[in-house]
Amino acid sequence: MAVRALAFDTFGTVVDWRSSVIAELEAFGRSLGVQRDWAAFADDWRAGYPPAMDRVRRGELPWTKLDGLHRMILVDLLAEAGLEGVPDAAVDHLNRAWHRLDPWPDAAAGLTRLKARFVITTLSNGNVSLLTNMAKRAALPWDCVISAELFGHYKPDPEVYLGCADLLDVAPDELMLVAAHPSDLRGARRAGLLTAYVDRPLEYGQSRPPRKITDGEFDVMARDFLDLADQLGA
Amino acid sequence: MAVRALAFDTFGTVVDWRSSVIAELEAFGRSLGVQRDWAAFADDWRAGYPPAMDRVRRGELPWTKLDGLHRMILVDLLAEAGLEGVPDAAVDHLNRAWHRLDPWPDAAAGLTRLKARFVITTLSNGNVSLLTNMAKRAALPWDCVISAELFGHYKPDPEVYLGCADLLDVAPDELMLVAAHPSDLRGARRAGLLTAYVDRPLEYGQSRPPRKITDGEFDVMARDFLDLADQLGA
Repeated sequence: MAVRALAFDTFGTVVDWRSSVIAELEAFGRSLGVQRDWAAFADDWRAGYPPAMDRVRRGELPWTKLDGLHRMILVDLLAEAGLEGVPDAAVDHLNRAWHRLDPWPDAAAGLTRLKARFVITTLSNGNVSLLTNMAKRAALPWDCVISAELFGHYKPDPEVYLGCADLLDVAPDELMLVAAHPSDLRGARRAGLLTAYVDRPLEYGQSRPPRKITDGEFDVMARDFLDLADQLGA
Repeated sequence: MAVRALAFDTFGTVVDWRSSVIAELEAFGRSLGVQRDWAAFADDWRAGYPPAMDRVRRGELPWTKLDGLHRMILVDLLAEAGLEGVPDAAVDHLNRAWHRLDPWPDAAAGLTRLKARFVITTLSNGNVSLLTNMAKRAALPWDCVISAELFGHYKPDPEVYLGCADLLDVAPDELMLVAAHPSDLRGARRAGLLTAYVDRPLEYGQSRPPRKITDGEFDVMARDFLDLADQLGA
């Protein structure tokens, strides 16, 4: 392996979207004086995201930033929860909860170590402004911010992985995708990238089943970003 | 003015390309044991860049990264200087001198102050890898790296300024271009952006004529990035 750059999936890999979104939903509920099952609401919001991307992929929707997809899903979920009358500004603020996600405890320290040896970038389906705001708030030390938005394709479409290598001016096999999701890593591998799986057992709370990964399927298997830095000599 | 984000031209505005490129050319000459007028060579290299962009703009060349344009100009200049036989790897290394430019003395400190109040991004004709490598080497604290390359258009085409605002999810009049070049600022202004002129009297060495700027043409006139931070309350 001759790794020159590391590209990081963000939701679930760098940031704990679920705890952060639940906390934002709870604050939203308090502001309205209503109570719902906000953990279930957060899970439903996230579950709406792959089908929404599929609508873009099939051409049923024109290219739409993830902020736009998140908002379409949110409006539907608010209606289902009997909360149709929320002012637009409050819906917008809530929708931008995805810009205000907290990192996993090891993320910033691990990225800082990895940055000393490699170029480190986001490679997320989140739009550029979302990733930029997230990084600024959470002090994530990216060398640059690369998003599916730049290619008009969502991961795991190969255009995203290959477009990232082209922008960084490295060969696909000099670029390593770091992700907590086998489907993302498999997309990267099909496109010729190196792959590092990072385990995030708490991404879906306490109850998610273990992920199925074939032995040797990915180039690196890491417990967290500090372990990844150890394994890559950073 | 309701500034939410600042976009920075880089060559000449953030980094002192001329001194840096001259030093790289001198090192290149020493490695070959040849002597030329390297200051004139650097100026010719830079002077070849607007006509090369125009060839892209007119469709005579397909979209080409600035690294590619720089290399085409460099190969011609080496031939004119009687240095045709230089190995490809040495030409590539020299061409990447533009990735290794030193910032003006106030740049990193000024950007750090401005970053505390605004989103700060590059908005350069340099390609993403060039800007990323430059920032990493010079510790420039960008929130993100936005380049003409992302839009397939070179400044001062309006697509670049408007594309930057779209990626940052701000209105054009919430985005301020910071540049040392009136032509760039005029392009931004035509696209509806705010503008800040920063004086860089040494960009072309000691001898350049003062720039012609109409009173009130730009929203802010600053001596350097620290003065810009003062004026913007950062």
